[in-house]
Amino acid sequence: MDDYDTVIVGAGPAGLTAGIYAVRAGLKAIVLDGKTAGGLVGESPAIENYPGFQSIDGMKLAEKFKNHALRYVKIKEIEPVTDTRKENGRFILKTDRNEYSGKSVIIATGSEHRHLGVPGEEELYGRGVSYCSTCDGFFFKGKKVLVVGGGNTAVGDAIYLKGIGCDVTLIHRRDSLRAEKALQDKMFFMDISVIWDSVVEEIIGNGKVGGVRIRNKKTGEVKTEELSAVFISVGESPNTELAKKLGARLTEDSYLQVDRWMRTSVRYVYGAGDVIGGVKQIITAAAEGATAALSAYEDLTNPYWKKEEKSVEGFEA
Amino acid sequence: MDDYDTVIVGAGPAGLTAGIYAVRAGLKAIVLDGKTAGGLVGESPAIENYPGFQSIDGMKLAEKFKNHALRYVKIKEIEPVTDTRKENGRFILKTDRNEYSGKSVIIATGSEHRHLGVPGEEELYGRGVSYCSTCDGFFFKGKKVLVVGGGNTAVGDAIYLKGIGCDVTLIHRRDSLRAEKALQDKMFFMDISVIWDSVVEEIIGNGKVGGVRIRNKKTGEVKTEELSAVFISVGESPNTELAKKLGARLTEDSYLQVDRWMRTSVRYVYGAGDVIGGVKQIITAAAEGATAALSAYEDLTNPYWKKEEKSVEGFEA
Repeated sequence: MDDYDTVIVGAGPAGLTAGIYAVRAGLKAIVLDGKTAGGLVGESPAIENYPGFQSIDGMKLAEKFKNHALRYVKIKEIEPVTDTRKENGRFILKTDRNEYSGKSVIIATGSEHRHLGVPGEEELYGRGVSYCSTCDGFFFKGKKVLVVGGGNTAVGDAIYLKGIGCDVTLIHRRDSLRAEKALQDKMFFMDISVIWDSVVEEIIGNGKVGGVRIRNKKTGEVKTEELSAVFISVGESPNTELAKKLGARLTEDSYLQVDRWMRTSVRYVYGAGDVIGGVKQIITAAAEGATAALSAYEDLTNPYWKKEEKSVEGFEA
Repeated sequence: MDDYDTVIVGAGPAGLTAGIYAVRAGLKAIVLDGKTAGGLVGESPAIENYPGFQSIDGMKLAEKFKNHALRYVKIKEIEPVTDTRKENGRFILKTDRNEYSGKSVIIATGSEHRHLGVPGEEELYGRGVSYCSTCDGFFFKGKKVLVVGGGNTAVGDAIYLKGIGCDVTLIHRRDSLRAEKALQDKMFFMDISVIWDSVVEEIIGNGKVGGVRIRNKKTGEVKTEELSAVFISVGESPNTELAKKLGARLTEDSYLQVDRWMRTSVRYVYGAGDVIGGVKQIITAAAEGATAALSAYEDLTNPYWKKEEKSVEGFEA
């Protein structure tokens, strides 16, 4: 079995940055991922809000992150962690090929957007189908877009998209929204119209989104709407399976709970990236990975520090 | 007077990223800085831990950040904020040339490393003289380095540098250290030697650090030591003047206090970057800027949200 100071699970921006920082701090580290490195970054058509790159293809940025991390740390791709146990004070992470033993674990397992599961959704992803208004809204300024959902996130997305200049319609399968009243008030004040009791049956387009086929669940009526983008906000699930197996506490919203230093409720277990919630940007995920690695370094180097939050200042500067 | 949704003070990674995110979210924003854009980034000889750039000259990265931000937001350089007041619910920021009115303010004013004030220190900065072991330590692996100071930061730096493979000596002007015992134990366990009761009188070098001239304060003895780098850890002061004028609370360590969403104790005032403390990396500063801008957007768009921390989730995804 291979022994490490820290085993990082997840090779998105959070995990890769944790790898860079862990090794630079002198820790022996490895990064494991069930898929390929880069996380959701690689799926984005263009990223314009990661400082330093005015506009970059998601695949290219993912590649840059990966190559940067590879200068420091081994990355095992397509090797999902299938089980974990604690043994002699170490964390053992089992994959289908190997076992990795770590004095600490950084959980950067990300989250999955819930999908509609309708025709066109997968094929047109990144070509008008999006699960992230903050990431992609900017590309549809002045265009007609549809937001799917009825919760806080969906209504927040609709407001956000309207605010940046999209022509927004919301579609919801019921006759009332789950979102908070304040948000709903704001949305109606902004003249965002809602298609009630209706579901998207198909997303239509040739190479890019051109419209949607909508069915009214009460009347059964089916119609086609022309538009340029569909933002799907029907919830998402952080990948907290590993965190739960390790006994780490979750938040009310089912994210992995961390403090400001990315420490979870379990000693020597840290969290970073989408799995911990927050604003979920590439830049924040990377920063959380850096912070998690520095905290692991600190706790492994000087366990006394962690008893008092402010004592972490000793590491700074 | 020019009216903005948010006035961002400080054009380092935190302020510039806040500018990008604020404008992308639909806010009218401006960035002010008393110096030139880029902050401390521009002073670093090489940056190897900002994900996406395996190794980049600090000046170049600062330039990239600035140009990226300029796509979205006006930046006023060499225009220090001299005063501020509240007027009709808006924040008025006065510079020597203009007044800027903002519904919100993002404070990203950074911090200043305290200097020794000895010959050679300024000339050899970035050429072996450093104020940041995490940033620059890696370049001196296997080399002889000196850490100046006796507090938690200095001893933490010495441990960090030893851990990554530098040959470390600490120099302190007294006969005992202020650092916590646990840290001192660790340092002595790691065989880091200390030059007691002594001060650096001069940093010597031709183009890069070659050694230091040291004076023992008790015996008056002066000697020269050959080495490759001097890490100066004699404290630092966050630039909190503006924060204090706005009435924002500071931490025990004199940093600007913020919550996870970068909100200060004053409504519509946010903090990001070195001024708020933490691990003080470029990547974390940028992430904090992004988060601060998204919180400003949220609070300006829907002030009800901020009454309950978890309601911010409504913005996510």
